Amino acid sequence: MIKGPDHLTGEDRPHLYMDDFDSQLKKRKMADKKYQMDKKIGELKYTDLYPHDRNGKEVSEAMLKQLTEVLLDFVNETNDRKCKVLDFHHPEDMKKLLDLSIPQDGLPLQTLIDDCARTLKYQVRTGHPHFFNQLSCGLDLVSMAGEWLTATANTNMFTYEIAPVFILMESVVLSKMREIIGWKGGDSILAPGGSVSNLYAFLAARHHMFPNYKEKGQSSIGAQLVMFTSDQCHYSVKSCAAICGLGTDNCVEVPSDEHGRMIVSELERLVLERKSKGQIPFFVNCTSGTTVLGAFDPINQIADVCQKHKMWLHIDAAWGGGLLLSKKHRHPRFSGVERADSVTWNPHKLMGTLLQCSTIHFKIDGLLLSCNSMSADYLFMTDKLYDIKYDTGDKVLQCGRHNDIFKLWLQFRAKGLNGFEAHMDHLMEMAEYLVERIKADKDKFYLILEPECVNVSFWYIPKRLRNQPHNQQRINELAKICPIIKSKMMEQGTMMVGYQPDDRRPNFFRSIFSSAAVQKDDVDFLLAELDRLGQDL
Amino acid sequence: MIKGPDHLTGEDRPHLYMDDFDSQLKKRKMADKKYQMDKKIGELKYTDLYPHDRNGKEVSEAMLKQLTEVLLDFVNETNDRKCKVLDFHHPEDMKKLLDLSIPQDGLPLQTLIDDCARTLKYQVRTGHPHFFNQLSCGLDLVSMAGEWLTATANTNMFTYEIAPVFILMESVVLSKMREIIGWKGGDSILAPGGSVSNLYAFLAARHHMFPNYKEKGQSSIGAQLVMFTSDQCHYSVKSCAAICGLGTDNCVEVPSDEHGRMIVSELERLVLERKSKGQIPFFVNCTSGTTVLGAFDPINQIADVCQKHKMWLHIDAAWGGGLLLSKKHRHPRFSGVERADSVTWNPHKLMGTLLQCSTIHFKIDGLLLSCNSMSADYLFMTDKLYDIKYDTGDKVLQCGRHNDIFKLWLQFRAKGLNGFEAHMDHLMEMAEYLVERIKADKDKFYLILEPECVNVSFWYIPKRLRNQPHNQQRINELAKICPIIKSKMMEQGTMMVGYQPDDRRPNFFRSIFSSAAVQKDDVDFLLAELDRLGQDL
Repeated sequence: MIKGPDHLTGEDRPHLYMDDFDSQLKKRKMADKKYQMDKKIGELKYTDLYPHDRNGKEVSEAMLKQLTEVLLDFVNETNDRKCKVLDFHHPEDMKKLLDLSIPQDGLPLQTLIDDCARTLKYQVRTGHPHFFNQLSCGLDLVSMAGEWLTATANTNMFTYEIAPVFILMESVVLSKMREIIGWKGGDSILAPGGSVSNLYAFLAARHHMFPNYKEKGQSSIGAQLVMFTSDQCHYSVKSCAAICGLGTDNCVEVPSDEHGRMIVSELERLVLERKSKGQIPFFVNCTSGTTVLGAFDPINQIADVCQKHKMWLHIDAAWGGGLLLSKKHRHPRFSGVERADSVTWNPHKLMGTLLQCSTIHFKIDGLLLSCNSMSADYLFMTDKLYDIKYDTGDKVLQCGRHNDIFKLWLQFRAKGLNGFEAHMDHLMEMAEYLVERIKADKDKFYLILEPECVNVSFWYIPKRLRNQPHNQQRINELAKICPIIKSKMMEQGTMMVGYQPDDRRPNFFRSIFSSAAVQKDDVDFLLAELDRLGQDL
Repeated sequence: MIKGPDHLTGEDRPHLYMDDFDSQLKKRKMADKKYQMDKKIGELKYTDLYPHDRNGKEVSEAMLKQLTEVLLDFVNETNDRKCKVLDFHHPEDMKKLLDLSIPQDGLPLQTLIDDCARTLKYQVRTGHPHFFNQLSCGLDLVSMAGEWLTATANTNMFTYEIAPVFILMESVVLSKMREIIGWKGGDSILAPGGSVSNLYAFLAARHHMFPNYKEKGQSSIGAQLVMFTSDQCHYSVKSCAAICGLGTDNCVEVPSDEHGRMIVSELERLVLERKSKGQIPFFVNCTSGTTVLGAFDPINQIADVCQKHKMWLHIDAAWGGGLLLSKKHRHPRFSGVERADSVTWNPHKLMGTLLQCSTIHFKIDGLLLSCNSMSADYLFMTDKLYDIKYDTGDKVLQCGRHNDIFKLWLQFRAKGLNGFEAHMDHLMEMAEYLVERIKADKDKFYLILEPECVNVSFWYIPKRLRNQPHNQQRINELAKICPIIKSKMMEQGTMMVGYQPDDRRPNFFRSIFSSAAVQKDDVDFLLAELDRLGQDL
């Protein structure tokens, strides 16, 4: 059904794969473009730019405009299906292609522009329509515009004093996100990634339930604290136990069912088991969208157990959170989400916000401040000109905090709530389309499970393994070819899709749809290209 | 000596203050600039951009070029001494000046451009030559160019697979930084801010000394762990104790001398005191450049105590680290730095790298991995195409990690080591010049201490308090006027300089030189403007 372009000049060459032979060549060889600045300006150095030269306007503008040309070309290539996704070289070879050295004396502006062009030449185009590799991908140009502005504004997010507009934007956007979760009030903060967001939740839970812990530490409790999460959870949950003094042995992994969802009866059994040892179960992590399979733990059932045993319910929706924006896909995945005490939700995943943009939300207001405040009186004075309730610095684990809000706010302005909903529905439609295509071509592909999210897990079946019973022996063979196909696609640069083992099976492909760039013909390409690369393995 | 421009039209109006009356007006009123896109394009929406529209090249380029104009104007204004530093409004008023709302349907591209222009209009120009307010300031255009590229490349730093060039850059730059510290080998990582870098150090120390802690937690040790830091340290050090299970009561604050440096005999006394209680002192934080006073703890003496009592020596040089690059200023401040087990060093402070860019360095290689590894087999497989020793993801606390290296690497290329050294010497020269000017005008200014770094701490003395004994009564009065002057400078938008109390004295001004934009006449302006705003208070 899906034809691989074995014979690039043959008349039955599938139009899905590549428009013509020239474009194939273009994909194989990436040109080394030259961005030639005006020679006089190119020979100048950083000392001729603002602020070193007070009259640096002309040179500064020339340098930044030249850079913009380099960046626009990268944007255009990223969106050109005839361009490669990457130009792969092994680390030791790559070092020879680049000059990464730190010089004693600074280099001229032309060299810096060349550095930028060369860096992008060898960078993976994570926004390319044939990049299916990562949970965070795509190149949302509005969010990118937001990040260019963020860089130019270069400020820190701890006080209204130095980030007035951005601080207000955080308040507006985070309130809206809590409203979408289903809460009135509450509090939120942006964190450098979902792992830190989960850490915030852990710390707030511990502080809320054991208010002396902050000053007195573990010794103030006596008994061992225990946390629970499914065996499919993100590894950062376990990391909280290592960082915060529980030890990973006290982060209990609850078994999951064949879909990857936590088995709630097992949760309760394990809670009781730990209680019987005199330990204190206090925190349950419920994953909404597991990393590999995209499974959603059953929130309402877990919330019942938490209520019964007085444990904090945290929902790690770093991955699945975006689906809260879709009426069609929100339920039943997120039914009961409003019962959680805290929710991690990463806009830099399904929402396509540029890296990084992670949020953590709390049902109870005031907890972030009382948990994390160290009352640094050099920053958070109370005799300021303005209403200091807007200062966020004393609520956060970091001191300096990157501005991660503008790129997200600008996206909200561009797309509106309806645009984000359409985006989510599109991503899910692409995943459904892939599932449908895989099912329709059972000879060549094996679907591992019906996905709940945009993760599609499958094996590719080379010719020699077709029409054979799907037993452990075949699975082991299918698993072996995953890294080989992956190597080939990277070396040829035509596509990227990830593979991994999990706790039940050896290597399998996991295709991710989180980029707005992907359309149905890109899904067709994904399958055709796997077949081209793998059929004779 | 320094004349305030009381009478803006008077013939003795100091040239230092303002070139002419028109420019004063310009500083007071910031124009609401209009960036009018081609009407046809301006009415389009995000769906007409790449990747939503496959033929989105023209519209995407038009939008990004228009944005670049907005950003270049902001860069120009930031570098224009006749422009305001900020256009202050109280939060409730600011909300009325902006439309921050999240719409149901997306807004046209022209509105997004207007949003960008308006955001920057009300944003504080942290790179302005009259912004002396924060440890991280300045607008280094090379680093900014780097951050624009970083946004456009939009990738994650966990594997060589998706960030090949950037991963190699990290290796080159971090090795060079360790070499500058004085180590051969070792390991490093970039973290989202100095607070997280300090947390990395704490965790590595605990893991190194108590390898079972990761799995078994606090209960595997029995005795109470204790850490030590000076009473002038950054609050994030104390925060480690709260996060990691020690409790802040077990982060012992060692008294400092009148310069703000740790008293090492007190450190040893407190270590012995805790030992006598059966507790385990294991970690000492030595600050190189305290936040308020810019003091440097005596490394060699502290290292002796650590050696004697087998404690980990961490140096928090988040602030002072840049001075490692200056032959003139490195010693005696950093004498003995190579004896440390770990060093935090934030390029986003003295080195002027855009926010965020923080590094943490370890003398021992392999510790980051063994401490933080959670071995997520979906990301860090061992059957990859390339040499996986380049993958950094399993060494870090976060999973996804922002690319913070390119902007720093590009700065190193632009400046070279010599350029960075010149930058450090310039910043110190500006601080020395301010000290000299303050000393020369004892009537109007009171220097609180001889600084070791670019923090200059002083009081401004209004007319009514001149020629009076400098006793507690006068100090209390001087302290009261700090927030008043600060309010006036913010409302008028002419300048920003911070004030705060510390543990020995009430409010005082602390001027920071970390921006390459600041020249001697800007220092003159700082003093003249304080005098203009404060003389009648």
